[in-house]
Amino acid sequence: MARVVVDVMLKPEILDPQGQAVQRALPRLGFEGIADVRQGKRFEIELDGPADEAAVARIREAAETFLANTVIEDFTVRVEESS
Amino acid sequence: MARVVVDVMLKPEILDPQGQAVQRALPRLGFEGIADVRQGKRFEIELDGPADEAAVARIREAAETFLANTVIEDFTVRVEESS
Repeated sequence: MARVVVDVMLKPEILDPQGQAVQRALPRLGFEGIADVRQGKRFEIELDGPADEAAVARIREAAETFLANTVIEDFTVRVEESS
Repeated sequence: MARVVVDVMLKPEILDPQGQAVQRALPRLGFEGIADVRQGKRFEIELDGPADEAAVARIREAAETFLANTVIEDFTVRVEESS
């Protein structure tokens, strides 16, 4: 069984209030030296079969049409080594 | 400026309704062969300084105390090559 990871992040030009909240909270909690925080989503998708080119292409299509809103979000798809 | 990525996922034994919703929706949208989907959070943290051992240790502490709920979530911290 293969695992494909899809990371979905807001585009850099889109305001990220969740990330900003984390960024502002960290110094109050004693964590200094943080320039920026962006928060996004991570999907871990386990496939029935191997993560071949066709399977990854299908996942990429699913990410583009369904997992990410490509108007405001960027996504990356990568095959993860099975542990 | 260095980037550290913190991935936060629900522990395997914890029910993940968001991931299940995605898993059930995918076949209806024509994407077959998906065995499991888990959904989690991804934090991209930009540091003012280098991502040396001390900085990564600080981020790990922040992840443990603040970004993840370690009762129900696992997290990983890794330094990402700057592009």
